[in-house]
Amino acid sequence: MKGFFQLLSSSDFRALFEQFQIIDSEQVLLADGLGRILAEDISAPESLPPFSRSTMDGFAVRAKDTFGCSESEPALLKIAGEIAMGQTGQEISLKAGQAATIWTGGELPGKGDGVVMVEYTHLLDSETVEIFRPVAPGENVIRSGEDFTRNGMVLKKGQRLRPQDLGVLAGLGITAATVVKQPIVAIISTGDELVEPDKPLAPGKIRDINSTTLTALVRECGCVPHTMGIMKDDLDTMRYACQKALEIPADMLLLSGGSSVGRKDFTLKVLEEIEGSELLAHGVSIKPGKPTILARKGNTALFGLPGHVGSAIVVFYLFVLPLLQKLSGAKCSTGLQTITAITAEQLPSTIGREDYVRVTIDWDKNSSFPRAKPVYGKSGLLNPLVRAEGLLVIDRDVEGLDKGEQAEVLLFP
Amino acid sequence: MKGFFQLLSSSDFRALFEQFQIIDSEQVLLADGLGRILAEDISAPESLPPFSRSTMDGFAVRAKDTFGCSESEPALLKIAGEIAMGQTGQEISLKAGQAATIWTGGELPGKGDGVVMVEYTHLLDSETVEIFRPVAPGENVIRSGEDFTRNGMVLKKGQRLRPQDLGVLAGLGITAATVVKQPIVAIISTGDELVEPDKPLAPGKIRDINSTTLTALVRECGCVPHTMGIMKDDLDTMRYACQKALEIPADMLLLSGGSSVGRKDFTLKVLEEIEGSELLAHGVSIKPGKPTILARKGNTALFGLPGHVGSAIVVFYLFVLPLLQKLSGAKCSTGLQTITAITAEQLPSTIGREDYVRVTIDWDKNSSFPRAKPVYGKSGLLNPLVRAEGLLVIDRDVEGLDKGEQAEVLLFP
Repeated sequence: MKGFFQLLSSSDFRALFEQFQIIDSEQVLLADGLGRILAEDISAPESLPPFSRSTMDGFAVRAKDTFGCSESEPALLKIAGEIAMGQTGQEISLKAGQAATIWTGGELPGKGDGVVMVEYTHLLDSETVEIFRPVAPGENVIRSGEDFTRNGMVLKKGQRLRPQDLGVLAGLGITAATVVKQPIVAIISTGDELVEPDKPLAPGKIRDINSTTLTALVRECGCVPHTMGIMKDDLDTMRYACQKALEIPADMLLLSGGSSVGRKDFTLKVLEEIEGSELLAHGVSIKPGKPTILARKGNTALFGLPGHVGSAIVVFYLFVLPLLQKLSGAKCSTGLQTITAITAEQLPSTIGREDYVRVTIDWDKNSSFPRAKPVYGKSGLLNPLVRAEGLLVIDRDVEGLDKGEQAEVLLFP
Repeated sequence: MKGFFQLLSSSDFRALFEQFQIIDSEQVLLADGLGRILAEDISAPESLPPFSRSTMDGFAVRAKDTFGCSESEPALLKIAGEIAMGQTGQEISLKAGQAATIWTGGELPGKGDGVVMVEYTHLLDSETVEIFRPVAPGENVIRSGEDFTRNGMVLKKGQRLRPQDLGVLAGLGITAATVVKQPIVAIISTGDELVEPDKPLAPGKIRDINSTTLTALVRECGCVPHTMGIMKDDLDTMRYACQKALEIPADMLLLSGGSSVGRKDFTLKVLEEIEGSELLAHGVSIKPGKPTILARKGNTALFGLPGHVGSAIVVFYLFVLPLLQKLSGAKCSTGLQTITAITAEQLPSTIGREDYVRVTIDWDKNSSFPRAKPVYGKSGLLNPLVRAEGLLVIDRDVEGLDKGEQAEVLLFP
């Protein structure tokens, strides 16, 4: 069923993502967990630290035995022994007036409740130590469970696993985690003029750029590309290819090719003809990227991307990436780092349309904001894309920006 | 040869990296090229586009045939044929007064030098088209080689390959690139108290956190971790382990463990005893991270990292990552995204020492800068590390920061 669609604003377009659900989860080993999104809360199976530990090299004491001591009136304590690293401290139980030699990370002896740093002690002989500063109970000690208590919350569902998070899980004896699967993204380039990069070029043909670019973009954001190659502009071929993509099963399909009028209709037709598909958007009021199409079949997102790779990249960062994050259960955002910059020259635009201008960034040390300089070049050229470092955003309700105005720039990763 | 070392400032520490060279290069396929650093300039083996292409759907014309036409006085051109996508346009050669139907991306016909957008045309009959707007020569056309000329520079040595760069290489028929090898980083945890995360905990033992964390950090920055596990605090064992690491051969060794006085000396001894090693730094005036050691054997960097994982992470981002970038031939930087934030409370520090304070970031929409709030917790605790989003920098020449002052924050990736 073909409908009439209005151009959506970029925020209305992103609002459509609410219709998609987080995909399935799986267990992975910690070694494979970097960057993955937790599918469930993780609580501590044991206390951390498992015992009260010293945070200093020095002497474990009963704190009250040090009360009132000073440089001029040191406390004299008998050395009950040394707690070697990796040995239990519980083999020693401090009696009143006793201390035990201890190292950073060592387990406190029985009845010990504080540690005096070695700098504030002096060995009188092998059995006696002078203490020059009092310690409070708990001083220079991390108590058993003070970091994480058993059954306490460690990491929350939806969180992306960073190196430090993986480290803490290892510290708690957790060696696997339930994470959201990495979305599988099928990538199809369409066009009778396209040739694989490693094939000879016949007259009138050009090489497929989009498959390589989109595959790398998908991989860059931690998803799994399934590159299907070049398909002919032919309804039967495309219908078959889409069917194959759905059978993977892919969580998303990126169909690219077709910035021309004839092609746009063709992509629309292909997506509409997928059995059970529902067209959600046909056109978005951004430049470049206007002829973007979004449909769904169940929870599988079907994108029709502009044919020009420069436009496809903008649409990827603005819409594809946030939807992939939504499917992964991560927080929804444009995904690109945003900075504030000063325009290096006047930039015209049109009210009612968001513009994404390719810019280089000049990090002027003497200014509080870097300068963003547009990378000029005819629409359709690739080399401005290679030179650009980011996209300067011109909002839809302004006619353009003057030279020296502040603007948001999305930095390419 | 043991020397007396002064604490270095972080910039003096980084200046030592000049002593290290870029490592070897290798050829990779484009599919494996994402994020890799180019080891040589790349020039275009062929022109792009390979032929003059239309950037619009419409009619290819000899521009001068359209001069002077308008809505009221359209030019009437005879349609010489249609250039189908992927077909050479050269089979048609435009005579004076002729036009050819063309699609976006199609090859211009012989003698054609401009394209009139379909919107400014009207088909009078199947053989005749009315043109309402004149076009200049080259209008709506990308000329052969206009994007990249044959033998022209495409990408420069030292550049990191982004998706768009890979796409452009594909477009030029380049399917492999010479890139710097991914540095191999050997990781050793030392400590008699350490146990692997999947093993039962005996009394006095704790789990090894650093191996997991450092492995993930190395992987996160595109290098190859070689995790060697836990080694006993024993000179023979450590000597053997270091020898093994050098035989991989590793480009860098991260030895972690030993924030205690005894341990620090031990790590130093181990690194000094490596035959042919040269000690470059022993201590850096930052907090946390002071007991960092850097040595080298030939071009292999040997790091002694603080034992506490929170300190090891700071040292990783401040020093290990920039040195890995140097070994890879990429630009040297701290590697972390830096933002300016406002302190949410007073932060004391000490002159002569850089402080890196763990903070959370509150992205207040109404303020031009986000607020950075310190994550408190005893030194040695892990859970502040899990909660933190970045490190706020207090420069070495200040005594601290007042509430509401601007400060730099390095954001965790």
